[in-house]
Amino acid sequence: MTDPQETRIKSSMATMTADTITVRGHDLTTELMGRIDTAALFFLEVTGRLPSPAENALLNAMIVAIAEHGMMPSVIASRLTIMGAPESFQGAVAAGLLGAGDVFVGPTSNVAHLLQVEAKAFPGSDDERAAAIVADYASRGKRIPGLGHPHHRIDPRSEKLLQMQAEHGLDDSHTRLMLAIQRAAIARRGKHLTFNAVAAIGCIASDIGLDWRAVRGIGLVARTVGLIGHVLEEMKQPAAPAIWDLVLDNTDYSDPEPDNG
Amino acid sequence: MTDPQETRIKSSMATMTADTITVRGHDLTTELMGRIDTAALFFLEVTGRLPSPAENALLNAMIVAIAEHGMMPSVIASRLTIMGAPESFQGAVAAGLLGAGDVFVGPTSNVAHLLQVEAKAFPGSDDERAAAIVADYASRGKRIPGLGHPHHRIDPRSEKLLQMQAEHGLDDSHTRLMLAIQRAAIARRGKHLTFNAVAAIGCIASDIGLDWRAVRGIGLVARTVGLIGHVLEEMKQPAAPAIWDLVLDNTDYSDPEPDNG
Amino acid sequence: MTDPQETRIKSSMATMTADTITVRGHDLTTELMGRIDTAALFFLEVTGRLPSPAENALLNAMIVAIAEHGMMPSVIASRLTIMGAPESFQGAVAAGLLGAGDVFVGPTSNVAHLLQVEAKAFPGSDDERAAAIVADYASRGKRIPGLGHPHHRIDPRSEKLLQMQAEHGLDDSHTRLMLAIQRAAIARRGKHLTFNAVAAIGCIASDIGLDWRAVRGIGLVARTVGLIGHVLEEMKQPAAPAIWDLVLDNTDYSDPEPDNG
Amino acid sequence: MTDPQETRIKSSMATMTADTITVRGHDLTTELMGRIDTAALFFLEVTGRLPSPAENALLNAMIVAIAEHGMMPSVIASRLTIMGAPESFQGAVAAGLLGAGDVFVGPTSNVAHLLQVEAKAFPGSDDERAAAIVADYASRGKRIPGLGHPHHRIDPRSEKLLQMQAEHGLDDSHTRLMLAIQRAAIARRGKHLTFNAVAAIGCIASDIGLDWRAVRGIGLVARTVGLIGHVLEEMKQPAAPAIWDLVLDNTDYSDPEPDNG
Repeated sequence: MTDPQETRIKSSMATMTADTITVRGHDLTTELMGRIDTAALFFLEVTGRLPSPAENALLNAMIVAIAEHGMMPSVIASRLTIMGAPESFQGAVAAGLLGAGDVFVGPTSNVAHLLQVEAKAFPGSDDERAAAIVADYASRGKRIPGLGHPHHRIDPRSEKLLQMQAEHGLDDSHTRLMLAIQRAAIARRGKHLTFNAVAAIGCIASDIGLDWRAVRGIGLVARTVGLIGHVLEEMKQPAAPAIWDLVLDNTDYSDPEPDNG
Repeated sequence: MTDPQETRIKSSMATMTADTITVRGHDLTTELMGRIDTAALFFLEVTGRLPSPAENALLNAMIVAIAEHGMMPSVIASRLTIMGAPESFQGAVAAGLLGAGDVFVGPTSNVAHLLQVEAKAFPGSDDERAAAIVADYASRGKRIPGLGHPHHRIDPRSEKLLQMQAEHGLDDSHTRLMLAIQRAAIARRGKHLTFNAVAAIGCIASDIGLDWRAVRGIGLVARTVGLIGHVLEEMKQPAAPAIWDLVLDNTDYSDPEPDNG
Repeated sequence: MTDPQETRIKSSMATMTADTITVRGHDLTTELMGRIDTAALFFLEVTGRLPSPAENALLNAMIVAIAEHGMMPSVIASRLTIMGAPESFQGAVAAGLLGAGDVFVGPTSNVAHLLQVEAKAFPGSDDERAAAIVADYASRGKRIPGLGHPHHRIDPRSEKLLQMQAEHGLDDSHTRLMLAIQRAAIARRGKHLTFNAVAAIGCIASDIGLDWRAVRGIGLVARTVGLIGHVLEEMKQPAAPAIWDLVLDNTDYSDPEPDNG
Repeated sequence: MTDPQETRIKSSMATMTADTITVRGHDLTTELMGRIDTAALFFLEVTGRLPSPAENALLNAMIVAIAEHGMMPSVIASRLTIMGAPESFQGAVAAGLLGAGDVFVGPTSNVAHLLQVEAKAFPGSDDERAAAIVADYASRGKRIPGLGHPHHRIDPRSEKLLQMQAEHGLDDSHTRLMLAIQRAAIARRGKHLTFNAVAAIGCIASDIGLDWRAVRGIGLVARTVGLIGHVLEEMKQPAAPAIWDLVLDNTDYSDPEPDNG
């Protein structure tokens, strides 16, 4: 039998008694309900403190920026899931969230990791650090996350977020470094690289104090909101049967890949 | 081949062009980012319109009320999942969401269904309708969702939500009916039945115009926020190994149930 | 603090010591590995005993029958998920499994429930019971699960399974009742109703002794096998980007449903 | 609109017509049902060919070896999930699968990757290659996957699998290299390192021709089988409420980590 002392679990998220719930030190009914919004609760959960109004506003803007883009892959997955399992709303939302990984949502955390952790190894001014970081990534054959866009020279969501950050007078040290990295990368590549929404979220989330690992959480909250909207629409006006038909009509049998057995 | 006309998919959630994203008819960067919060976006997704300030405040209060209660079953599931699969933050959150089903989150939708759909079959004053509904449930051996609590005569979260609803001057027709149902159920059972948070969310969500199926979404957004907090804490200060040890130390081998083969 | 006596957990699935693992009373390395196959292990897990060779053969045939049908909705969901989260093979498989619910996989359990539980209320010969069951379903406006097929008068998978059951000389009391139900339903409806694979799995699984709740597990094992194949193929020869393009190209913005806000 | 030619999807898994289903070129009812078992279907899915009897036997033994170990973290997650969402058997199984990631199941794929991919860079005899691989891992501060065990000098599951591989006369080139790696690692570390089940599965799966990425699938099939057993037992004899109580009784509120905000 394990030593009971060793198996005690520690958590600083919440305490409950028969009469009260305390979240991160704040009484739920008297200090939180009616006083903070959903984004502020997220901020409290992942940092342990309540956000300033400016931090709160930026966090909401980031969530709103990425929650709803129409028929994205995760939306399609959720819609196909509710068709097969209409008894489980949460299962359909979970199926969509499972695609919020390294390709679509993870890069925001990678930008934050670059700025919060990797950048510490590079001293100097922002431009000196940026040049060294860009050279380091190039030497390892890695792409800087957050730069580039198939259509836009300027990503309107990034522009809006940076403008809000300036208007609210928030600390912008991570944003300035990320903009310097953009300039250095453009100089090295000799072509324009858009400062996309991934970059904006990665640096602004860092500036408001979110741990780089928590930055992925912005995308997960946003996706949950968007997926709920689509699952409800799917229940009222199904698209999944037409999606399935489309895929069947457009799939060709192919001989297996040579290395495939 | 299916008729292409038949396989076209319809959605009113969002439109994208090379330059703009429009969510439910609102331009993302100029009309939504910086102007609405996360709860308002949820409201827009599931109703198609922006909430009034009062509706927005109540929706936030409902989400905040149920997001974080410490070591709940879904939190434990998420923590155990990130221990085995640290590469997938979204997988750990999804694992926790999967438990947000008929027992813990679903009853809010059941209250809303009762008030929005089932109650239509019962005419009269609130008290007449409530008496008939309680009698109908009793005749079918069903319990009214949202009534009862192991410890509290008054659920402080319900009290806070009802007080906010009154202060904001919101329509309260569903809330009045649910309170009448509480009175009728108490009269029938001859003992106190607490108007718990499930009841409060079910009726207030109905009063602010949410489809009963979308009411579950309040719990899913709330859980996502809370689970992200716990998964992040688990990464910094692991509890799952101690949880696993505890379970192993407290599990007895039992002979199978007789009907178990 | 809870009484420690009350919180002890009971399970009869496995015991572990420093030297041995015992599964359902059988030593893992000396009695199971090398002696039983994957389907027999499933049988042992859900019934507590090892299957006879005939039961084992039928269980394998049922799993094989439903594992791989090409681009099914759950397959599409898994492929879209691995595109967004290539770090999580298990997440992509889980996303596909989440669609294995009441519409596609659940009906096998419904057939088994009908035969194992509901049918007990109806005495008499198989044909008498079948007539009463069909009348009862009709009076409640419910469809009998497992009957009907869009294309086939005879489902070749059902035919093969029934033939195997006969060849192996297995008890077939549930199968005979289900065939009687088919006859009664055809007589009542005045048109042919195919005995589809759902019916065959529901009755044969009952005949080999699986609890009706475990019958869903046949589909889950089968789907897991099939989804792994598709996720691996997706990694080598991606289809998800083309699926996404197809959906985007075939989605029309629609005005919201009137009841949608 | 995308060029239709570009959006066509290719797959070699299955073809369906009104009358037949063909899986990897084999007619489902006449060539697969009744002729192959569940493991052989898995093999067919991921390699494109049917296994030899020896390959089939080893694959079953590997699945059986790791399917059921009692109250593992993923089992606990599944049990807690079905408590909250009893409507979704598949959701509970999926929740457990989500923990089958880099820590518990992934290492089998890492062994296979080492043997199938990384080892190609190291020429010579098995012992020469093994010494170079061990030195390379040490120079990068990485541990060789599959070596070491908290209790056993010999893992009885590995011993059984290697014995079966020898008895069936299977190609064992990957196994021999992995055993050479074990010897080289022991020599370098100057202490015994157990050849555990992860090592055995990684090398034997490679010897029977599974792509290293598909090796994770062995664990996913095995876990699905085991999780189904536990979810069914949980439905009949609940353990989750006692697990939840245990965790609540053993959780201490802790002050947040200093870096936690």
